[in-house]
Amino acid sequence: MTAKHDTIRAVSWEEAGLRLLDQRLLPRQEHYLVLNDSAAVAEAIRSMVVRGAPAIGVAAAYGAVLAARERYAALPADWRTGFEADLGFLQQARPTAVNLAWAVARMKACAAGVTGDPVPVLLAEARAIHDEDIRANLLMGERGAAFISPGNAVLTHCNTGSLATGGYGTALGVIRSAWAAGKLSGVFADETRPWLQGARLTAWELVRDNIPVTLLVDGAAAHLMQQGKVQWVIVGSDRIAANGDVANKIGTYSAAVLARHHGVKFMVVAPASTVDMAISTGASIPIEAREPQEVLELGGQPVAAPGASAWNPAFDITPAALVDVIVTERGVVEQPDAEKMRAMMDRQ
Amino acid sequence: MTAKHDTIRAVSWEEAGLRLLDQRLLPRQEHYLVLNDSAAVAEAIRSMVVRGAPAIGVAAAYGAVLAARERYAALPADWRTGFEADLGFLQQARPTAVNLAWAVARMKACAAGVTGDPVPVLLAEARAIHDEDIRANLLMGERGAAFISPGNAVLTHCNTGSLATGGYGTALGVIRSAWAAGKLSGVFADETRPWLQGARLTAWELVRDNIPVTLLVDGAAAHLMQQGKVQWVIVGSDRIAANGDVANKIGTYSAAVLARHHGVKFMVVAPASTVDMAISTGASIPIEAREPQEVLELGGQPVAAPGASAWNPAFDITPAALVDVIVTERGVVEQPDAEKMRAMMDRQ
Repeated sequence: MTAKHDTIRAVSWEEAGLRLLDQRLLPRQEHYLVLNDSAAVAEAIRSMVVRGAPAIGVAAAYGAVLAARERYAALPADWRTGFEADLGFLQQARPTAVNLAWAVARMKACAAGVTGDPVPVLLAEARAIHDEDIRANLLMGERGAAFISPGNAVLTHCNTGSLATGGYGTALGVIRSAWAAGKLSGVFADETRPWLQGARLTAWELVRDNIPVTLLVDGAAAHLMQQGKVQWVIVGSDRIAANGDVANKIGTYSAAVLARHHGVKFMVVAPASTVDMAISTGASIPIEAREPQEVLELGGQPVAAPGASAWNPAFDITPAALVDVIVTERGVVEQPDAEKMRAMMDRQ
Repeated sequence: MTAKHDTIRAVSWEEAGLRLLDQRLLPRQEHYLVLNDSAAVAEAIRSMVVRGAPAIGVAAAYGAVLAARERYAALPADWRTGFEADLGFLQQARPTAVNLAWAVARMKACAAGVTGDPVPVLLAEARAIHDEDIRANLLMGERGAAFISPGNAVLTHCNTGSLATGGYGTALGVIRSAWAAGKLSGVFADETRPWLQGARLTAWELVRDNIPVTLLVDGAAAHLMQQGKVQWVIVGSDRIAANGDVANKIGTYSAAVLARHHGVKFMVVAPASTVDMAISTGASIPIEAREPQEVLELGGQPVAAPGASAWNPAFDITPAALVDVIVTERGVVEQPDAEKMRAMMDRQ
């Protein structure tokens, strides 16, 4: 792995608390917040200071450390009651990404065995979640890149890089690895309306890490594929159902249908913590409905006429049948179905 | 036709010259420009003060009147040389919409037979082009609406209404007619990046004309169809090839692929002046490449990191095979092909 293609860390722990790069302000401003209580972490997740399924899982884990620190300092004999309330609040910050609930559950389980000051134990667990995420991404990067043929060009959607994870990235990790291996002839990124994660975040981190990127409006992806300009669409996920259906940023399902129509391959890259074996199909995944203002306004200024309404689902569901390969750190599943997903998740 | 659903005219002639609603400023400002020379009309077309294939045809026809007025006043004995140069300049303002070349050719042919002051004759011809366009739209509105079943909901892309035509609209004319007939349960509009014609223009004119509209980001159209929320996609066109391939605003081809995948019907509405029988297939239609800045900036402010590039084709090509019906004022073609298109165009 060439370090020059992996320099950014948006989530980190320091003595004072959780340090987050405020992703709402990129690329115009590179501003870091340091949060020292868990309510502020929940609000940062809700308001998208930090976003991306793995990154909000890591942030929530550190948020749990802050909750324990606060509750233990206030009430050493009975810190757990307040701590568990704080965990509930963290978990409810956003509904679609299962990594959030997964990280909170893991911190809760860790806390159950603690005696005395919970902070050192929980901090070690949060750091482990963070480190495991980066290691998973590096591994997935190699595994995903193995599918790419030399000279291929790729299209990605939303942001799935260092900003969306503990570091390195999921889909963007595969792109980093393939780029470092000299395989890629081009990287295209959907701008990803309404939040413009592609234009604001993916372009920022690729430019920073010396990987050339070409943006396009989401509506141009079909024309790009029609012209044979890409061979792979590579995306992340916020939750994968037991049958391989994939929830991801709105517009992903569109890209998957278009990819299939054009014979372009479709890869999903996500850590095993994204797989929700308790949900049988994508139909049961909760889709977050966000404010119409995200569509009706741009940069705080109205773009649509007063009186117009907007429909603003934040995610969509891509059926497993449109997915060529799911890459996780536990293994790779081609043409996913319930049986193959179960076999992959049963591996350790 | 209920007048309350058709109140806007973006292009009109007055004694001083051509009056254009500046569509770059909508919906924030309703500002009209009055242009009194043809170079200003060419620049207004180029810079998208006026846009929409039929509207730029109508604007260019009035531009030809201004060219004749100026050239005849300056050099009554030999006004044609300058006039024809002005026509060439008008025609080159934008490449994809054939209506522009069509209107310029018609004005040139009209001028060929003129003796004495050309202005009254050319003004009558420009007015005829304008009136015929509105009449064609009203007729297409009825014809297209006949395909819509009661209770259907529709999705449209870009702006194809009064702002894009002489008045009433093509695809939006069908929506106006279907709405007036009480057939529609809902109107959805893609915001249509990068220029946001859906959010800025379509929403503005539908709200003004008392037709409720729900905007969505272009990437959400697949999810909308997956949920069964629309039965028709209805769009306009900038040029239709002799075999029924359709050039239209970037994102249209995406909507057509998605519609076919979901069993949603796809209708194209355009006057016969949009059909270019000299071009056999869509592969020969010139696609305008616009500035990367339209993608990299929003409202003059950069949204993408410096160093990112962008690919910004303004149009795409939808193959005839994905089109269920083409509606023109000369007739309707279902499952278009070269033979049916020829038969339709041979009608008077």
